[in-house]
Amino acid sequence: MTFELYYWPGIQGRGEFVRLALEDAGAAYVDVARQSESKDGEADGGGVPALMKLMQDPKLERPPYAPPFLKDGALVISQTANILQYLGPKIGLAPEDEAGRLWAHQLQLLVTDFIKEAHDTHHPVGSSLYYEEQKPEALRFTRNFLAARVPKYLGYFERVLERNSKGPQYMVGSAATYVDMSMFQIVAGMRYAFPKAMAKAEAAAPKLLALHDRVARRPRLAAYLASSRRIAFNEKGIFRKYPELDA
Amino acid sequence: MTFELYYWPGIQGRGEFVRLALEDAGAAYVDVARQSESKDGEADGGGVPALMKLMQDPKLERPPYAPPFLKDGALVISQTANILQYLGPKIGLAPEDEAGRLWAHQLQLLVTDFIKEAHDTHHPVGSSLYYEEQKPEALRFTRNFLAARVPKYLGYFERVLERNSKGPQYMVGSAATYVDMSMFQIVAGMRYAFPKAMAKAEAAAPKLLALHDRVARRPRLAAYLASSRRIAFNEKGIFRKYPELDA
Repeated sequence: MTFELYYWPGIQGRGEFVRLALEDAGAAYVDVARQSESKDGEADGGGVPALMKLMQDPKLERPPYAPPFLKDGALVISQTANILQYLGPKIGLAPEDEAGRLWAHQLQLLVTDFIKEAHDTHHPVGSSLYYEEQKPEALRFTRNFLAARVPKYLGYFERVLERNSKGPQYMVGSAATYVDMSMFQIVAGMRYAFPKAMAKAEAAAPKLLALHDRVARRPRLAAYLASSRRIAFNEKGIFRKYPELDA
Repeated sequence: MTFELYYWPGIQGRGEFVRLALEDAGAAYVDVARQSESKDGEADGGGVPALMKLMQDPKLERPPYAPPFLKDGALVISQTANILQYLGPKIGLAPEDEAGRLWAHQLQLLVTDFIKEAHDTHHPVGSSLYYEEQKPEALRFTRNFLAARVPKYLGYFERVLERNSKGPQYMVGSAATYVDMSMFQIVAGMRYAFPKAMAKAEAAAPKLLALHDRVARRPRLAAYLASSRRIAFNEKGIFRKYPELDA
């Protein structure tokens, strides 16, 4: 069965947390909105229209609120952490026991909280306004985010690695899960958006940095990161490089 | 087995979404931090110290990041939606099938998103600062929240009820789930915090309002709401009545 991932085609965004898991697992999937045109120039049913069509289908009993969403046969699942919770066991990136799965999901929900705050550094008033319309608020939000929130989150993730009774190689137990892929993405995103602040903050999280490097070396993930399937970070996604916010 | 709920004792907050499910189900639980003193004046191990003690226990391999968390035997689970996902099937407030459970959880994760935004109406810069330190930002955030976000969220919840093939009595399928309790709480909280704005917004969500009323009449929930176990809304929780923000 080929999974169908629906997400905005021009950004990493929340969809990237799903892509990383699918790519690391070598799972068969189609990134629907990134299919644009076939060779003969005819639309092949991809692009943003495909995404909007499914999301706004009036016959869909259980419509997603927003991308990303995953289609697996007749099932349409949204909310990034929910998608990963569903996918994880199917692609070999989740713990086997119920307690481990609840713990992995709990960590993924904290990732959700973190990336919402990372997004709000440039959109503290509302995502329907441009960054340029909320720059003073963005600066004040970001100061608090970098001074108080980032150290708290990174410190917690570091503690999770330290306390893992199976060792600090992975966030949960003794094998890689989708949570490790998300940790990689958080470190990578923060380094892109806030290189100065992150250089200071990451010094307190050596095990997390080691995990980032370990994930980046996983063969399928390394191949993905080097491919054109990996969209570059840019100023339309969650992690944006606005030097005036970095400190 | 008696569940142990750990949450701040003076507010409804995120813990209330768990309390409502436990109360509606008539489940045996202890609201740990609200146990203060026994009759002979000795501490019975409750209060905020009990909450902090568990959260900061250095021997806990899988520590919660923040309250609420639920203890069920040796298992400690945090993140409100994760707690409800775990509890739901055990207390008869979750769908029986996997697709239904994923859908209920997806809706609950949208509730998480909503209450984060409702909280940010008074804390748009950061929760470590007082509301009084971020009033101009709060006003601007709230204007956008009430004008753009609330209608979008309520419209979606209304659509979910409309499209439920089992009818608009419940959010998921043909029986009550924890999601219905959360819908009640959202309507109740919004009416408390933003009575003027909510009076306008709720006109577009008649099925959601009917669900609110239906939930409030459920016998065990009605008894809970009339009891001293239901903490009153106040200006330390998520939904705060600041008239200057209401419009």
